[in-house]
Amino acid sequence: MESLSIVKIGGKIINDQNLLSTFLDSFQQIRGAKILVHGGGRAATELSKKMGVDVKMIEGRRITDEATLNIAVMTYAGLINKTIVATLQSLGCKSIGLSGADANIIQSHKREVKDIDYGFVGDIDKVDGDFLRQIINLNIVPVLCPITHDNQGQLFNTNADTIAAKVTQAMSQHYTVNLKYCFEYNGVLEDLNDPNSILQIVTETDSTRYISSGVFADGMIPKVENAFNALKNGASSVHICGIDHVHKDSPGTNFIL
Amino acid sequence: MESLSIVKIGGKIINDQNLLSTFLDSFQQIRGAKILVHGGGRAATELSKKMGVDVKMIEGRRITDEATLNIAVMTYAGLINKTIVATLQSLGCKSIGLSGADANIIQSHKREVKDIDYGFVGDIDKVDGDFLRQIINLNIVPVLCPITHDNQGQLFNTNADTIAAKVTQAMSQHYTVNLKYCFEYNGVLEDLNDPNSILQIVTETDSTRYISSGVFADGMIPKVENAFNALKNGASSVHICGIDHVHKDSPGTNFIL
Repeated sequence: MESLSIVKIGGKIINDQNLLSTFLDSFQQIRGAKILVHGGGRAATELSKKMGVDVKMIEGRRITDEATLNIAVMTYAGLINKTIVATLQSLGCKSIGLSGADANIIQSHKREVKDIDYGFVGDIDKVDGDFLRQIINLNIVPVLCPITHDNQGQLFNTNADTIAAKVTQAMSQHYTVNLKYCFEYNGVLEDLNDPNSILQIVTETDSTRYISSGVFADGMIPKVENAFNALKNGASSVHICGIDHVHKDSPGTNFIL
Repeated sequence: MESLSIVKIGGKIINDQNLLSTFLDSFQQIRGAKILVHGGGRAATELSKKMGVDVKMIEGRRITDEATLNIAVMTYAGLINKTIVATLQSLGCKSIGLSGADANIIQSHKREVKDIDYGFVGDIDKVDGDFLRQIINLNIVPVLCPITHDNQGQLFNTNADTIAAKVTQAMSQHYTVNLKYCFEYNGVLEDLNDPNSILQIVTETDSTRYISSGVFADGMIPKVENAFNALKNGASSVHICGIDHVHKDSPGTNFIL
């Protein structure tokens, strides 16, 4: 099968114009079929502040009310997505910015209310890999923002790491998929204070150990969980790597089951 | 040639959820190939106010500075575009929201500075009709927002009426194009105080007369100019019609050269 790179970037890269330029320059050098998935970044929070919309938190989790959803749609599907697309285009990489609502690519439902009502947060039901493949076959790179919909007129905020994992799963029907989570370090660090302490290979057993010893904490835990889920659901390889290594062969941390 | 309907809606329809629903329900009933072009609406102005961004005017013309451009991208390419797409999807009309930057569909350049520097306002250089046709051939309706780019990384605000006219011109290579400017009346009125005074046919000679007598004034003048330009540049028919007549055969005002 043809290979496909799916690359996810998060808020810290999006927030910094220099980091974003460096990343996009590396991204456009990836050979063959590719998809970019981007997260939100600080723009939504800044816009919320300017508009006087309070960030609602319950038990440390962010709640997406209607005003917050509108801000997410504006910044993720609007400003961030189109800025990335325009930049890629200027680098000679033909790309198309898409939300999950566009061509019904990613259908989701409102997250079930158990203890917490997260508001307009969507959990993914299905990804239309056929449409993405049609776009790729036109030599156009899909750039996906973290907005989905329920096919009944409601937009939802959806975690970008999860979108990357679910798109990987759908595309693995058609491609050998290499999934890369790209962030500000050159890989997963054993010691956060030492940028050279990159873990080159992490197995699922290693991961369990690192979580209990506290080496993996906070935001790293869901990243690692997504990495192993992706491997179990069709990804051929999963890496966590730095922003300027994404087009190179064996960068950063390689996850293996 | 196959026929294609290109429909443009403006701010007044977008601002009112009921009008927008009525319109989209009529739009999705149009048989055959279709494209929707939407304008901006009040959302951008409201967001500017909330963010404390002043609307800059020079000699009565709105100037798009960087903050205003960002707001336009957020509201036009983000909130409005994705809300329309999600609604169409819920009506069973598969659609894809696109700016001019996406897949390099509409390339523009900064409007030349003569007396006034309009800022980040783009005048259109070219429209990629082939890509739009590929999307239509997948049975997906393109929904275009009034944001374009220069293919060098800069986004621009661009008049939606002009986008509709230029897309008509490009698509007329492949289709018999029927262009409809859709607005809050059921056609062009001879007497603004009488909603039944619809002009059924307007020739270019009529138009010159109506402009000098003041029947056509303000926002109607560029609309009428765009209508005749479109007819001269490949449109098979140009109508101005109401929001719930867009799927019917001979609604509103028909322009003929």
